Amino acid sequence: MIVSVIPITGVPLLRPGDDLAGILFAALDNAGHAPRAGDILVVCQKAVSKCEGRIVDLRRITPSPFAEQFAAGTKGGKDARVVEVILSETKRIVRMDAGHLIVETGAGWVCANAGVDESNTGGPDTVILLPLDPDASAEGLVAAVRARYGCDVAAIITDTFGRPWREGLVDFALGVAGMDPLLDLRGGHDLGGRELHHTVVAQADALAAAAGLVMRKDAGIPAALVRGYRYQPGTGGGRKLIRAREFDLFR
Amino acid sequence: MIVSVIPITGVPLLRPGDDLAGILFAALDNAGHAPRAGDILVVCQKAVSKCEGRIVDLRRITPSPFAEQFAAGTKGGKDARVVEVILSETKRIVRMDAGHLIVETGAGWVCANAGVDESNTGGPDTVILLPLDPDASAEGLVAAVRARYGCDVAAIITDTFGRPWREGLVDFALGVAGMDPLLDLRGGHDLGGRELHHTVVAQADALAAAAGLVMRKDAGIPAALVRGYRYQPGTGGGRKLIRAREFDLFR
Repeated sequence: MIVSVIPITGVPLLRPGDDLAGILFAALDNAGHAPRAGDILVVCQKAVSKCEGRIVDLRRITPSPFAEQFAAGTKGGKDARVVEVILSETKRIVRMDAGHLIVETGAGWVCANAGVDESNTGGPDTVILLPLDPDASAEGLVAAVRARYGCDVAAIITDTFGRPWREGLVDFALGVAGMDPLLDLRGGHDLGGRELHHTVVAQADALAAAAGLVMRKDAGIPAALVRGYRYQPGTGGGRKLIRAREFDLFR
Repeated sequence: MIVSVIPITGVPLLRPGDDLAGILFAALDNAGHAPRAGDILVVCQKAVSKCEGRIVDLRRITPSPFAEQFAAGTKGGKDARVVEVILSETKRIVRMDAGHLIVETGAGWVCANAGVDESNTGGPDTVILLPLDPDASAEGLVAAVRARYGCDVAAIITDTFGRPWREGLVDFALGVAGMDPLLDLRGGHDLGGRELHHTVVAQADALAAAAGLVMRKDAGIPAALVRGYRYQPGTGGGRKLIRAREFDLFR
């Protein structure tokens, strides 16, 4: 079955309090792409965060001496107020080296700068935080699709992360609703009849990366509809994608 | 523009010496999906490795005492001969802990077990190695498409890797030809006019993950055609995706 990744275009600049679902639906209807049962609605976190008001005015931030010191040591001179915001979103620092801050956020994601975003924020002296509860945001979208179109879809809230060992950024799933983020093939068999022991597929991350192909940072496309990927409806939420610290060799 | 991920179905079990390109073309023609200019042909490494004869008969392997010792300490008892093969493909061990071997391969990829594969190998006592030069394998596919269909495509050879911090496996790009594996947006601007400083997108990895949505391990689909993703033809090869050790905080 062919999987289609449909960009949701024509979405206006989003502001706190905006009805994200309604705006996306208008764009989808306009393009003749009403959601169908089994579709996966993928939305970047920045769109969600903006509508949810997860915006910080840096003029109200007073950096701590610790934030000042780290910022002064970064190449190009990071804004100490941004460092302060990052630290306020941080539960634990995984690496603090070469001007990079790789942290574990309050919700448990391991990522650079606690996901605090300085681009496309809508203004100077402004940064955007990750949504407070991306699983809840995704669930809200699933419920809104059901109310508006009468069909069940899955929803994924994505963010763009760097990765150890590899250059470049890729989109990952933060929040997930309506599907299990993991596809567990253990107990199944390969084509030679050998049991598949280690095969748990991070299907929500793969869907996020696929959607990222059409959600370009410089093009103002904050969402996509993935059609044709078969999944079992399920639960778990994006937190299922976070490896427990005791099983993680790299933090 | 909608991106389509077309599974290449009906591919027979592959054997050393098989003409992989010819077999994929027959399957594509049969399904009415002849490659078009700008398509991206994505093939999993196992298909490539099998055709290239990168198969090891474990009955010919004598494990070293080091391999025996590590194998004995793994949960479930890893086959010491497999450990020996992994070590022979390894340039440097990144982590050797909790029964896991995360290594840097001779070619520079950081992955578990040096990519040595025990599933869908075609027989017992058999493991499959990564292709010797996946960039060359990808270039061969690009050339074969040009010869057969008279159009320029890109090609990506993928493998399925685990990731630090996150559960589950996702497909990544090993070999790349006909396109730059990275999309460099630096120097461009966000919608607010702010310069995009850190935005280099690992587009080949995103394409690999997208193709992975239709290349299921239990379904015998070793390849996909991605259509509708715009890229600049370019070079670089999959090695461009490997972060240099001196810039890597996690090895």
